[in-house]
Amino acid sequence: MKIEAINIEDKFSLFDEQWSPRIIAQMNETHFKLAKIQGEFIWHSHAETDEAFIVIKGKLRIEFRDFHLPLSEGEMCVVPRGIEHKPVSDGECFIMLIEPAGTVNTGDVGGERIKTEALWV
Amino acid sequence: MKIEAINIEDKFSLFDEQWSPRIIAQMNETHFKLAKIQGEFIWHSHAETDEAFIVIKGKLRIEFRDFHLPLSEGEMCVVPRGIEHKPVSDGECFIMLIEPAGTVNTGDVGGERIKTEALWV
Repeated sequence: MKIEAINIEDKFSLFDEQWSPRIIAQMNETHFKLAKIQGEFIWHSHAETDEAFIVIKGKLRIEFRDFHLPLSEGEMCVVPRGIEHKPVSDGECFIMLIEPAGTVNTGDVGGERIKTEALWV
Repeated sequence: MKIEAINIEDKFSLFDEQWSPRIIAQMNETHFKLAKIQGEFIWHSHAETDEAFIVIKGKLRIEFRDFHLPLSEGEMCVVPRGIEHKPVSDGECFIMLIEPAGTVNTGDVGGERIKTEALWV
């Protein structure tokens, strides 16, 4: 593993595609991913893993079946395994996801918005 | 697990002690910790785990035996398991550490600067 400084803002400048997480680092079996998101994702859950979100820029809202969690820049949350959630952002939002390598964006639901390729940036 | 927004800046305002990481979140068996640091830590390594650093405020320098890695706000790095390193910061620096629950700050070295208690904030 190369030991290097990873500049989060610089990494965001290297891709434009929304809802397509890019891996920037790995700590043991955990991936650090960046994603640009806008609009609504789909309802899904991850049976096998929790999922951490950190908002880097913009505003994120994570909808749960019984409440909505608004998250601003500099805020994070952990969605427990098995809990249905839907990330939503009115404007474009930059987020960091921290989750085990191999975690699929659409969780146990699959569907047309799935991204299975492990894309590094 | 309670699903909540965790404001990183707010969490930093809740403690002053330097070199004493505070846990703010858990994703599976991984802890997210905040630390305020200033001056030099000790040379140490973690035989069993990689360790991720994100600089939230200020400037961090991670010294390795054969080079120094400067890290600014918004930059991160992963120190691989088994690699000796020494975090240093001339001014006060706020960092986030992401590593497995139970990882000890002084690694395999121990010594008087060890913090073994899992402190949440």
